[in-house]
Amino acid sequence: MDISTLSNKISQTLSTLRYGENPTELYEPIRYIMALGGKRIRPLLVLLAAEMYDEEVETALLPAAAVEVFHNFTLMHDDIMDKAPLRRGQQTVHEKWDANTAILSGDVMLVRAYELLLGVEPDKLRKVLQLFSQTAAEVCEGQQLDMNFERREQVSREEYIQMITLKTAVLLGFSLELGGILQGAPEADAEHLKSFGDNVGIAFQLRDDLLDVYGDQNKFGKQVGGDILSDKKTFLMLTALEQASEEQLNIIHNWRNQGDDCIAADKVKAITTIYDQLGIRQQTEQQIEVYFQKAMQHFNAIQLPEDRKAAIRALTLQLMERDS
Amino acid sequence: MDISTLSNKISQTLSTLRYGENPTELYEPIRYIMALGGKRIRPLLVLLAAEMYDEEVETALLPAAAVEVFHNFTLMHDDIMDKAPLRRGQQTVHEKWDANTAILSGDVMLVRAYELLLGVEPDKLRKVLQLFSQTAAEVCEGQQLDMNFERREQVSREEYIQMITLKTAVLLGFSLELGGILQGAPEADAEHLKSFGDNVGIAFQLRDDLLDVYGDQNKFGKQVGGDILSDKKTFLMLTALEQASEEQLNIIHNWRNQGDDCIAADKVKAITTIYDQLGIRQQTEQQIEVYFQKAMQHFNAIQLPEDRKAAIRALTLQLMERDS
Repeated sequence: MDISTLSNKISQTLSTLRYGENPTELYEPIRYIMALGGKRIRPLLVLLAAEMYDEEVETALLPAAAVEVFHNFTLMHDDIMDKAPLRRGQQTVHEKWDANTAILSGDVMLVRAYELLLGVEPDKLRKVLQLFSQTAAEVCEGQQLDMNFERREQVSREEYIQMITLKTAVLLGFSLELGGILQGAPEADAEHLKSFGDNVGIAFQLRDDLLDVYGDQNKFGKQVGGDILSDKKTFLMLTALEQASEEQLNIIHNWRNQGDDCIAADKVKAITTIYDQLGIRQQTEQQIEVYFQKAMQHFNAIQLPEDRKAAIRALTLQLMERDS
Repeated sequence: MDISTLSNKISQTLSTLRYGENPTELYEPIRYIMALGGKRIRPLLVLLAAEMYDEEVETALLPAAAVEVFHNFTLMHDDIMDKAPLRRGQQTVHEKWDANTAILSGDVMLVRAYELLLGVEPDKLRKVLQLFSQTAAEVCEGQQLDMNFERREQVSREEYIQMITLKTAVLLGFSLELGGILQGAPEADAEHLKSFGDNVGIAFQLRDDLLDVYGDQNKFGKQVGGDILSDKKTFLMLTALEQASEEQLNIIHNWRNQGDDCIAADKVKAITTIYDQLGIRQQTEQQIEVYFQKAMQHFNAIQLPEDRKAAIRALTLQLMERDS
């Protein structure tokens, strides 16, 4: 099936989910956040991986939905912790309702995600739930590291990669592995799918960091330089902090201490100038390439004819080459 | 095995649990709340129900621990929502650390609770996880209702019973049902265990409400009248609000509006006097008896010789007759 047919199946499946009715204060926020949309990339990965092994993907639909519900649970709770006012351009749940509502509705979402996995064939159920639980805990670890890093002065690039691996990449890896396992992929293949997803997830996140500074404003959905303005410790900033001269460090720290008092465009320009001086763009592109190559090694090791692998390969390349 | 032997087994099992190590900010609060103790009544119910069907209860230990971990997850998140400063006389997690920590550590606890259930025999795994998930969602529904009721003027006694059923009783019912299912109890027995637990849970909670006002201060762990002082809508208060004369209603509302400005002992005495005038104690005792009798009907319907049922029967009677 082509991507848009699969996406339609995902939308349709998500629209049939029933989270609960009473009390409405508990369940309305779940319907709200799930209706905000998003690219639904994780369930798509489940289905694409599933389709590699069996074109009949109906049984993978609810497990795919489980991953999306889980992902939205993490968004609902992360938004509380990050005090984020907006999610996909709309009010976050804790803003529209309150933090208590977002805590409790999120809790039920995690329960519902598990429930959606209970339809998995009995001989695969424990394995799937073990991997899902491990992934879920890792995503929480990643969020905790992210919060820790915000409070810390020094964060190494290795620590940053570890953080984005846990917070973002492992769920992409799990999505692909899940799709394979559901359709009886050999264990070695399932592990390659997992490692492919983990590494491509790291590459995606680094690319996000890069696009935030060097993306095309017309195509990039967010404000270019947003990470610079919010003093986010991205891969680019951490590289710059490691390699900057004393003079450059002073400039960076001056801007980082100014908060909202400075002119945004000036700050973005000043930091970007230092990035350019240090060749941060090229170094980041190099790192992306390293993880992308690792990913493709695992993908190439999957024991399937090329025509079975074409869809995921094409999607990956397309996502890697986007400039927005 | 006698209760203290079972309790020791539970303590030992809980002490061997490993929630995770890094980042320490995520896992330390879990070890903290689990170390605060408590009566461990839920895992005890799992083991007692399990022992009714098979004296070898080793395989029920981790599932019993799962229920206790889940229960403590709900405490950690409820304490945030209720802004509770203390839990078992110690600082709550969100006070000792912060709300974000309590949210995220709680999330991981829910994941770990599921993981602890994954050792259940394959032919029982889906059923156990379905019942656990349903119970978990119901407990969240109960907490949401509890918060709703705090903001509402009018709450009926029926609504209150529904709330405590979800928030408290269903987890006792699930604990007993789980113990039975793990040891191969016939389906009808498992359902009776569940209904027994649900009803006895309601009776326990009503008894808690009663002891808060009419308990023996020397034996009762908390301050007598604590619910009155915090204007809690307990079964006693809701009954009084339904049955009070206009004059009595005025007195109640006057005291309820005074917040912390009044003399505590005067407020407790004034409200208790109205309870006495309306016969609230007797009415509450009657309701407790209704649910206790319902519970015992289900217990008596369990198809086992009396000697197998003696331990749970004794524990239930002991808990029902406590005056503290």
